[in-house]
Amino acid sequence: MKKVLIIGIGAGNPDYVTMQAVKALNEVDVFFVLDKGEVKEDLVKLRTTVCERFITDHPYRVVEVASPMRNTGDPDYKSGVRSWHDEKAAIFSRFIATELKEGQVGGILIWGDPSLYDSTIRVLQQIIADGKIAFDYEVIPGITSVQALAAQHKIALNAIGEPVHTTTGRKLLEGLPQGVDTVVVMLDNGSGIRALADEDVDIYWGAYLGTPDEVLISGKLAERVDEIERIRADLRARKGWIMDTYLLRRTPDR
Amino acid sequence: MKKVLIIGIGAGNPDYVTMQAVKALNEVDVFFVLDKGEVKEDLVKLRTTVCERFITDHPYRVVEVASPMRNTGDPDYKSGVRSWHDEKAAIFSRFIATELKEGQVGGILIWGDPSLYDSTIRVLQQIIADGKIAFDYEVIPGITSVQALAAQHKIALNAIGEPVHTTTGRKLLEGLPQGVDTVVVMLDNGSGIRALADEDVDIYWGAYLGTPDEVLISGKLAERVDEIERIRADLRARKGWIMDTYLLRRTPDR
Repeated sequence: MKKVLIIGIGAGNPDYVTMQAVKALNEVDVFFVLDKGEVKEDLVKLRTTVCERFITDHPYRVVEVASPMRNTGDPDYKSGVRSWHDEKAAIFSRFIATELKEGQVGGILIWGDPSLYDSTIRVLQQIIADGKIAFDYEVIPGITSVQALAAQHKIALNAIGEPVHTTTGRKLLEGLPQGVDTVVVMLDNGSGIRALADEDVDIYWGAYLGTPDEVLISGKLAERVDEIERIRADLRARKGWIMDTYLLRRTPDR
Repeated sequence: MKKVLIIGIGAGNPDYVTMQAVKALNEVDVFFVLDKGEVKEDLVKLRTTVCERFITDHPYRVVEVASPMRNTGDPDYKSGVRSWHDEKAAIFSRFIATELKEGQVGGILIWGDPSLYDSTIRVLQQIIADGKIAFDYEVIPGITSVQALAAQHKIALNAIGEPVHTTTGRKLLEGLPQGVDTVVVMLDNGSGIRALADEDVDIYWGAYLGTPDEVLISGKLAERVDEIERIRADLRARKGWIMDTYLLRRTPDR
């Protein structure tokens, strides 16, 4: 049986890699990499660092394929995502069918944790459901940018006994469910950060979390939002890409 | 300056320990342990395993103190929690003042991640705000039981582009905010699991996640809830304690 390991390598800091991930890395014969244009250089650097530092006793090779781009012009967000997943499924199928021999192990490295806003688990399940190729797979969790954000700001995500709502910039713009006072925002293209700027909200913001370029800003959202937008635009222009994550808390927890 | 490291060691599996946590463990002169009666034996075992396996070049000692118990009789939940935090702050203050010499490093090991439903960060901040003793501290994230749950069930926490609401059993009983279709439940004493049993909901349930005793059950909540309650009661009776986590999803993501 062929096997595929979906390995969370954590958010940016090679030291976020777990012992379980290190063991998994050392089982992999072929790493499969979907290259995303804009963040390529830094992601490649992290992947290379992680492989070179932690793979000690196993030969491996790397297969790179350009990642399909999601059609952001599709007016139906989910249908756009689904056809994007179909394209990825076709690519992963080909990888498993042609690059892995029976008994070999393929590895897919995921920035952060494969269970949070990543499509790889879903795409592999789709391939299995299609029934054309057979393989096993396993999921190895990794430290997310949300955990890096909390650790670096030295905060608990939750207020005492209260929920934490994790969402996207797109969803934040549609409004928060009533009764949600703490929200963690991922995948914001920059448009969501002002959604609660008129309310009494604290922000804990981080960009390039876990990397040497990490930037942290915290305070009252209304007082910080201009600064964050300016710095975000500067950083994005300078590096060519940005990944940021933030927590908003309506009722500060003292 | 004295320093305290709040180290997330992950949920149950020693291999969930990160390289960052390993480095942190090897800086610690004195580990400070708050013993919780019922889960003591297994927690002690995990702590001992982690320390013995990963501390290679640093002598350390362990100071154990019985953990104060939260007064669950307090009708005001938050006031009960706050006086519990006050007691912990007094214990940690004494630890930092008397057990750590200047320049030494104290370590507090946290099951899971210190940023999710754990009071240690808040308690240390309270001590610093009190201003009687001075010290630095750092937070090291760890793999949570939620991430273990997702990895072991091989699921994404979020439906495509949708939010994830993380809450407690107590809060779940008060009702979910409108528009929340995926909820992760932690710290449920067993009373919350039937809250959505009349709705069309999938459950992914896990107990003792990451440990050799791990139990996983998934399916339609209405069809599984009796089995989960029975198994949960059996396990609890057999081991003397249980820690379980589950995900409920209203609209299954296909």
